[in-house]
Amino acid sequence: MEIRAAIATAAKQPLTVETVTLDGPKAGEVLVEIKATGVCHTDEFTRSGADPEGLFPSILGHEGAGIVAEIGPEVKSLKPGDHVIPLYIPECRQCEFCLSGKTNLCGAIRATQGRGVMPDGTSRFSRNGAMIHHYMGSSTFANYTVVPEIALAKIRADAPFEKVCYIGCGVTTGIGAVINTAKVEPGDNVVVFGLGGIGLNVIQGARMAGADLIIGVDINPDKRQLAEQFGMTHFVNPKEVEGDLVPYLVSLTKGGADYSFECIGNTKLMRQALECCHKGWGTSIIIGVAGAGEEISTRPFQLVTGRVWKGSAFGGAKSRTDVPKIVDWYMEGKINIDDLITHVMPLERINEAFELMHKGESIRSVIRF
Amino acid sequence: MEIRAAIATAAKQPLTVETVTLDGPKAGEVLVEIKATGVCHTDEFTRSGADPEGLFPSILGHEGAGIVAEIGPEVKSLKPGDHVIPLYIPECRQCEFCLSGKTNLCGAIRATQGRGVMPDGTSRFSRNGAMIHHYMGSSTFANYTVVPEIALAKIRADAPFEKVCYIGCGVTTGIGAVINTAKVEPGDNVVVFGLGGIGLNVIQGARMAGADLIIGVDINPDKRQLAEQFGMTHFVNPKEVEGDLVPYLVSLTKGGADYSFECIGNTKLMRQALECCHKGWGTSIIIGVAGAGEEISTRPFQLVTGRVWKGSAFGGAKSRTDVPKIVDWYMEGKINIDDLITHVMPLERINEAFELMHKGESIRSVIRF
Repeated sequence: MEIRAAIATAAKQPLTVETVTLDGPKAGEVLVEIKATGVCHTDEFTRSGADPEGLFPSILGHEGAGIVAEIGPEVKSLKPGDHVIPLYIPECRQCEFCLSGKTNLCGAIRATQGRGVMPDGTSRFSRNGAMIHHYMGSSTFANYTVVPEIALAKIRADAPFEKVCYIGCGVTTGIGAVINTAKVEPGDNVVVFGLGGIGLNVIQGARMAGADLIIGVDINPDKRQLAEQFGMTHFVNPKEVEGDLVPYLVSLTKGGADYSFECIGNTKLMRQALECCHKGWGTSIIIGVAGAGEEISTRPFQLVTGRVWKGSAFGGAKSRTDVPKIVDWYMEGKINIDDLITHVMPLERINEAFELMHKGESIRSVIRF
Repeated sequence: MEIRAAIATAAKQPLTVETVTLDGPKAGEVLVEIKATGVCHTDEFTRSGADPEGLFPSILGHEGAGIVAEIGPEVKSLKPGDHVIPLYIPECRQCEFCLSGKTNLCGAIRATQGRGVMPDGTSRFSRNGAMIHHYMGSSTFANYTVVPEIALAKIRADAPFEKVCYIGCGVTTGIGAVINTAKVEPGDNVVVFGLGGIGLNVIQGARMAGADLIIGVDINPDKRQLAEQFGMTHFVNPKEVEGDLVPYLVSLTKGGADYSFECIGNTKLMRQALECCHKGWGTSIIIGVAGAGEEISTRPFQLVTGRVWKGSAFGGAKSRTDVPKIVDWYMEGKINIDDLITHVMPLERINEAFELMHKGESIRSVIRF
């Protein structure tokens, strides 16, 4: 079939919106009509050429929501008309990882997904006979896409696509890091580095989990108001702190954070986030994606005296299981997504979303098909 | 009273065994007749001058066992004749740390202990009127010492001092890291870096916890036999591995270690220990003490993909609570200490113990008074 898609033709180039050929779903695959998709920093990480594993040409986008249009052979859990969110971390419920009960990092289709193709090793996308890569198993910058059945969460039919698409990445990444990875408990003190979309979702996750102090750290004071609306109790601007940030945060939390979250991808902040944690038990969770080759470091004494260094991918969420729950939370008013979606636009204007991101003028731009 | 003690007069010097004046116990303090003490790498770390916080002159030693000779005012939990093990991490059961249920790092007397004095800010040791520092709150290289009540574990009276003194540091550090910090479960795969005393205790802890693979890593093949006797299932000599060690260990464990332990204090090995862990959940535990100013580093991707970096001090053991249990385990034959104590000697020959350590000819030397 002919579809409309935004193509990343080569690193650093603007996307081009074109008509593309999409082959129908093979065994275990599903054709999804994408109704909305967020534009995420990870898309920009690849578009910009910074991602060493980036493939071109490709159809980016991994934060979508839509409707099942057609199912391939052997698909059992979905039918046409089902509302779904594509999942860049699938949940096969059969691999060593899924069965461990200890991680959400399903390994079923990791290798082919990393090569930009479907599990059978081929792409469904082409243009003038030339193959175009899939991206993160999702490729949601297109009005139709093909996704493996195990990479689709079935969600309720009354959820608005242009809001819940954000649950396909940012919302779950932030809230999940608090609930699944950190397991924040009522009364805990939390420090959040970076008040972009992920940081705001960490904040609302911490509020939901009953945290006491929820300290936001950002060099941009304009971030303060919305963060407070989401549950931040204290704002710290490192530029306004006299002396070192770490002892300031340790003092503010009366001994250190129970949990800290790095939501930017800056390895220096990752170290500060660890070192502002409470001796004996404070746990720091890396969410941000660092540049290629960058390393974190600290003195081992920080760990021997009880601090724990962890990371979180997609909020530690078991994707097919947890994403529908988070959609429910949104529909029940437990979490706020509306105020995070600052711009909505058609696919033809997708490059504006990247420009807004660069200027720091958006939290989340959503493409509505 | 006049006692006999080995004094560390200055950094890098041999200890000198001399007669020293010991004042009696003040409020909350206990006079202990030391019957045996191990000589540990941490004593050597300080004696050698490598410890930036080392104080001189001081009476080293922190791995002792003995009998309560006299109690000071207000001491309620001990009486003369009780058998005890001094604890360099006390357990006050009242501070924020003890009450958290999350750590063994009691904070009650940390500041004064670090300054080499008793909680009231003074020393009980002197020589010709000149003050001598306490060491790690224990100073067991003396036939009598004064220790705070909260830093003494009461143990059963039938336990042999010259064996269970080792529980005051090395045994608990190794076994505790497995049981309390890692919480190894039956079927887990474990990699242990360094087959000295700590590593051997990690190995017997892993065997007790029911681990499947227990892989020991050491460049000295002479360590193999005893490690196997303690439960090691596979020996890896990095010098004999073709290519990189990390992928070799990942392959040997069919995906990576569930838990790894660094028992040496080498920051490069700490990185390898982390990176040989299983994606999704593998946890690496730093036990070894690195040199002053040294740092650990890795790519944050290692953590974002589910590995966890932790540390362990005194095996995460709640000292007054757990040490008597480990003494019971020894008396019941659940753990082996006898084969780790390779040399026993009187205090007058204590410098031989350091020489044996340097030559790698001892696992643990014990001073018997």
